[in-house]
Amino acid sequence: MDVARVLRMNGGDGDYSYSSNSLLQRRVISITKPIIEEALTDLYSDLNFPKTLIMADLGCSSGPNTFLVASELVKSIDNIRIKSGYDEPPQIQIYLNDLPHNDFNTIFVSLPEFQKKLTKQMVPSSSYPLCYFSGVPGSFYSRLFLSKSIHFVHSSYSLMWLSQVPEMGNTNKRNIYMSTTSPPSVIRAYREQFQTDFLTFLKYRADEVVNGGRMVLTILGRRSDDPCSKECTYVWDLLAMALNDMVYEGLIDEEKMDSFNIPQYTPCAKEVSKGVEKEGSFEIDCLEVSEVNWDASTDNSLDSSEKDSQGINMGKCMRAVAEPLLLSHFGESMIEEVFKRYTNIIRNRMSKEKTSLINVTVSLTRKGLGSMMS
Amino acid sequence: MDVARVLRMNGGDGDYSYSSNSLLQRRVISITKPIIEEALTDLYSDLNFPKTLIMADLGCSSGPNTFLVASELVKSIDNIRIKSGYDEPPQIQIYLNDLPHNDFNTIFVSLPEFQKKLTKQMVPSSSYPLCYFSGVPGSFYSRLFLSKSIHFVHSSYSLMWLSQVPEMGNTNKRNIYMSTTSPPSVIRAYREQFQTDFLTFLKYRADEVVNGGRMVLTILGRRSDDPCSKECTYVWDLLAMALNDMVYEGLIDEEKMDSFNIPQYTPCAKEVSKGVEKEGSFEIDCLEVSEVNWDASTDNSLDSSEKDSQGINMGKCMRAVAEPLLLSHFGESMIEEVFKRYTNIIRNRMSKEKTSLINVTVSLTRKGLGSMMS
Repeated sequence: MDVARVLRMNGGDGDYSYSSNSLLQRRVISITKPIIEEALTDLYSDLNFPKTLIMADLGCSSGPNTFLVASELVKSIDNIRIKSGYDEPPQIQIYLNDLPHNDFNTIFVSLPEFQKKLTKQMVPSSSYPLCYFSGVPGSFYSRLFLSKSIHFVHSSYSLMWLSQVPEMGNTNKRNIYMSTTSPPSVIRAYREQFQTDFLTFLKYRADEVVNGGRMVLTILGRRSDDPCSKECTYVWDLLAMALNDMVYEGLIDEEKMDSFNIPQYTPCAKEVSKGVEKEGSFEIDCLEVSEVNWDASTDNSLDSSEKDSQGINMGKCMRAVAEPLLLSHFGESMIEEVFKRYTNIIRNRMSKEKTSLINVTVSLTRKGLGSMMS
Repeated sequence: MDVARVLRMNGGDGDYSYSSNSLLQRRVISITKPIIEEALTDLYSDLNFPKTLIMADLGCSSGPNTFLVASELVKSIDNIRIKSGYDEPPQIQIYLNDLPHNDFNTIFVSLPEFQKKLTKQMVPSSSYPLCYFSGVPGSFYSRLFLSKSIHFVHSSYSLMWLSQVPEMGNTNKRNIYMSTTSPPSVIRAYREQFQTDFLTFLKYRADEVVNGGRMVLTILGRRSDDPCSKECTYVWDLLAMALNDMVYEGLIDEEKMDSFNIPQYTPCAKEVSKGVEKEGSFEIDCLEVSEVNWDASTDNSLDSSEKDSQGINMGKCMRAVAEPLLLSHFGESMIEEVFKRYTNIIRNRMSKEKTSLINVTVSLTRKGLGSMMS
């Protein structure tokens, strides 16, 4: 099985951790924060304010957002504790998970400083850390943790990445993703791969999460029932445009282009809820769809040069996501040219129309409250 | 506090993971294996063959020996289980700890393959991994884990590294370690730094290890009561010789040489037992002193060219350990010359005399059996 690389929008590959990505992710986290806080509040009081909480961030990537998520989780718990009038903060174990090729070294080197600052902010008098961190390499489409060992799972902008490019009966000609011109079998293959992967994910998490434990998952998704809807395919359509131009000019081999497909599926809310119901171990507490602008700004008063620089940023952002996939399929020689063209196309579109990303956020409880303290 | 880098004898710094180091470490592990097995047997049956075991390897480094230790621990548990007639193997969580600058990326990339092989060897029918791995960056002279969360701690060739170069009242002139020509205050400073660090280590582990939990620690040490005894200072005396030659030739500044000291202390068994008694949380089950040859071979029939190549290997081995320390103090320009001279001195000595390393191994139980299952 050719496992695709899980890449978060904050630039999974070190070199491309651009602030625009970081901004986008910050926006997403601020949108999902109330949902996370509600899940943590319920969990914390259901567990009767335990001395220890074990959490996991799946697809943590390596960059500023890795710590952003961790600190949001810890601060939320501390706020809930203070509101509830408890003196002693719990000890928190946070597992940071991503694929084995993720740059954990970079996370680990910054960790002591982050950990010290966090502890000081939260419990100024304590000589012990409030929070223990640990890196867990591996695909979240496999088992990662001991049975019934996790209280809370967080995952943001990771689960739209499939475990592999779907196996297709027909060639997805001139496309690199689902498109209105894709054969129906291609759309079916994508949908089925997502269903299989999402079920696998839920099954393994059901083993690992304690009864009564919570999960908050934010997935890049869509509002429409149609998986070829522009809201989720547009960004890849524009990359396909750049690639097709290069095929036309003889710079890229046509067969090479036809065999390239992005291992991503952006589900709608209904697909997420159906997956959860089918697997059966989790209950849905909340399911929300939200929207963020590509440029992570709702400011419509920007002049054209500002819009242009946002287009360039978005180009960099997409490069962080797409480059590793393109590199392994097409090789290094054409990369610069592809992204020059792709960025130009994005700049052009962003100056003319509002472009946004859709997020599906689901908050879940592991069924079986009776033995929650196991 | 200038925290010194913890470097294990298997080449802590990536580039220098030489097989000679690996051989030496293998030898040490095979010597300590019966002690580890006894501790694990007692632990496993005292815990009444639990479904889950949590272990930590402190100072795991990054190289073949990282996995060697992990697989020995897992295989031991499986042997004990089979001997006891239990069908179901426990799930094992292994925390791999080292300083944040350790190359965890290299460990993590090899982990899936290692994990798969290990699971197949142990439980051929299982689709679940037997063992879950997680990287924990941080100094073991600080808290690393949640309170009462660890069943078994292993550490080999790590605890002789001090948390810092001791603060000395007098200059340790022409020496880089304790030596017969060192001022008494220098010897005292080294001894006190070890005592402080070892106590700190035990205090934090006492918080983390469950009552009844076990620790097996192997420390590079000495037989003699005298900390300046040749058995433990010789290897550094030879490096001092190389450095002093270069001072004499004007290649190294004398003051620079005088301010360089190795942050290591090789304790005798009595110092280890005294430390454990003083801290008070652990009981000593077993305390052993063992010896390995520098060349990791007891073969006296080697001809001179074979002995010479072993001298070169030992030079590489010591380079892996000493280079980061020398680099940060003296800079890069003199490194090649120092190690050329040092290796020549080692080759010369190894051809003439038997040289060996002394290990102190201590097996400990966390006091307070009553609440072991906490």
